[in-house]
Amino acid sequence: MTDEDRIIYLDNAATTFPKPPEVLAEMHEVYAKLGVSPGRGTYDLASQADEIVSRTRNQICQFFGGDSPDRVIFANNATDALNTAILGLAKPGGHVISSRLEHNSVLRPLYYLRQEGIVTYDLVPFDEQGFTDPQDFRNLMRPETQLVVLTHASNVIGTVQPIAEIAALCNERGIPFILDVTQSAGVVPVNMKELEVAAVAFTGHKALMGPTGIGGLVLRKDLEIQPTRFGGTGVDSSSLLQTDDYPFRLEAGTINLLGIIGLSAGIRYITRRGIENIYREEMMLCRRLRDGFAEMDQVHLYRANDLNNHVAVLMCNIAGMDARDLGDILDGDFHIATRSGLHCAPLTHLDLGTSPAGGVRFSLGPFNTLPDVDAVLRAMREIVATR
Amino acid sequence: MTDEDRIIYLDNAATTFPKPPEVLAEMHEVYAKLGVSPGRGTYDLASQADEIVSRTRNQICQFFGGDSPDRVIFANNATDALNTAILGLAKPGGHVISSRLEHNSVLRPLYYLRQEGIVTYDLVPFDEQGFTDPQDFRNLMRPETQLVVLTHASNVIGTVQPIAEIAALCNERGIPFILDVTQSAGVVPVNMKELEVAAVAFTGHKALMGPTGIGGLVLRKDLEIQPTRFGGTGVDSSSLLQTDDYPFRLEAGTINLLGIIGLSAGIRYITRRGIENIYREEMMLCRRLRDGFAEMDQVHLYRANDLNNHVAVLMCNIAGMDARDLGDILDGDFHIATRSGLHCAPLTHLDLGTSPAGGVRFSLGPFNTLPDVDAVLRAMREIVATR
Repeated sequence: MTDEDRIIYLDNAATTFPKPPEVLAEMHEVYAKLGVSPGRGTYDLASQADEIVSRTRNQICQFFGGDSPDRVIFANNATDALNTAILGLAKPGGHVISSRLEHNSVLRPLYYLRQEGIVTYDLVPFDEQGFTDPQDFRNLMRPETQLVVLTHASNVIGTVQPIAEIAALCNERGIPFILDVTQSAGVVPVNMKELEVAAVAFTGHKALMGPTGIGGLVLRKDLEIQPTRFGGTGVDSSSLLQTDDYPFRLEAGTINLLGIIGLSAGIRYITRRGIENIYREEMMLCRRLRDGFAEMDQVHLYRANDLNNHVAVLMCNIAGMDARDLGDILDGDFHIATRSGLHCAPLTHLDLGTSPAGGVRFSLGPFNTLPDVDAVLRAMREIVATR
Repeated sequence: MTDEDRIIYLDNAATTFPKPPEVLAEMHEVYAKLGVSPGRGTYDLASQADEIVSRTRNQICQFFGGDSPDRVIFANNATDALNTAILGLAKPGGHVISSRLEHNSVLRPLYYLRQEGIVTYDLVPFDEQGFTDPQDFRNLMRPETQLVVLTHASNVIGTVQPIAEIAALCNERGIPFILDVTQSAGVVPVNMKELEVAAVAFTGHKALMGPTGIGGLVLRKDLEIQPTRFGGTGVDSSSLLQTDDYPFRLEAGTINLLGIIGLSAGIRYITRRGIENIYREEMMLCRRLRDGFAEMDQVHLYRANDLNNHVAVLMCNIAGMDARDLGDILDGDFHIATRSGLHCAPLTHLDLGTSPAGGVRFSLGPFNTLPDVDAVLRAMREIVATR
């Protein structure tokens, strides 16, 4: 790769890139050696593969402060995990509370359930700083409220929501609270016991530094989710009913061993570096980027005045310029990769006044550097100056 | 790995192992270089990743003789693909026909739908040679029959079903026919135009020689499936409705790019070797294994008299010996990896009279050799002799 070709990658909220070389190497080596179908007590290699899966359930349980490794459910990605949770918890006549910060992975299952006449729902707004207010959740809670589902960190504006307060309200009333940690896990501590949430839905390929194709749920022991996918699990094969036992109850078909190997290696990578160190470095760069943008009159930043309770995600527009065009110029002329558009969070953009064109999102990862940020600021100054 | 540790792997029907080194290498290299979130017209790297996805849809469409790359849907595995098809096609009051050869990936979604009062179904039996009879399908077809779903090759006894005849009956009556090609794709030609089926459900990690975590559906253009998973797709982000456009309609959340890279490399690998060559070699070994077993009086083989219309899967038991024990001895004493039990196909074993202990399955793959087969025959002779 020549220097010309080198890109400055600021689309880490879509997927982190590059992956740590040791994560890729471990997937390659371990899958070459043990890439069989996991199964206890079949043959030795299958038991070793099964041991990788069990160890990773343990690791994820510890990482998120879960109750038990048996309540770590593997899924294809966070969307699959959220569908499993939302569709498996919704009961006819129920009511759900969520927010206008959500990704389509939450909005669309809810909208589907409402269209089918199964549940009704309310979406809490976010304020001028980009935060939801626990009081709004409290005010919307009713006897038939059966679920609260909320993003931990917005994938558009990066604000981290006041989870513990909302969870306390849910727990007082016995309402399960599902937390979508897609954008937070790996940079912000997520401890289910401290936050007191009933479940987290995660993906492997973002700040957990694993590959695509793996994500999941960690469930508190008192949360019962009905299966919405059915098939083989390697246990209770003689029954035509999906087993009631976790994790198999919510995992049908051959498990993604390759993804699990990579996810495990990714979590070890961030644990070694320390997620508090990764967060501090990313936020230092994020502040510098924000401060630089703030000096440019034509750059409009959204909900980034206060970078406390924030992940390293900034969204902006240049006055009078289409977001898509700005993204194209950053890529074409400056080799800077960002994500422009609506970021699969249409209501967030609607409320920010950035629909339908959206904005340009800059999202930092553990491999970004000061020179990256300075190059972005130079590029933006040049774009603004030559308009 | 010392010679001691070398295992003879005969569990290829669970997952093929090892994978071709070039498949593992390509995943490692390409994902390291292009492992970003695919997206047309965002930045150059994302367009290149998107191009890999598009090219692989094309490749899969051609491989299966599909109508259009847009009708190639990626899923987590065959179970996920079959759930997407079955749950997305079932309408209240409908009737489904399937067979007693099915895997739990078909039996369990159907059982769920019946329990919920949505559909009724009938399961066609298999005969003394292990084949279903098209006449049985014909006799069960009714005006309200809305789906026929059938395995192409049994994962227990390896028999390849008379698909074209059954498909003709379905097409005469306008009934969609979903073919589960989990055990056939990669060794037996599967051409949707020749077989005239409405869809195939496949997995990547068996004879297609890809990794776990990737599978999918190929749909004929006239087949409309309702989504049962909802979320972001990168298109129509402003709508709360899942898009109607294929493939996105049935693909929610970040696509498994790593798996797609591996699947594409796997299909290239088998195409280069020629699936007819792979099949011929596997069946030559399978016949030798079958003939060897046939000479041992205490070994009971199931439905393997005629190895025409058969994949290289044999299931057997030793008289008076638990299948699990035989599997354990083969592994522990002879380093031979097989799969014992019910193989997630409980009705097949019930009808074979092998429930509840099941049997021991020997399934060959493209890396098995004559010495592997001879070692298995020596081992089995020794086990039989020392009883």
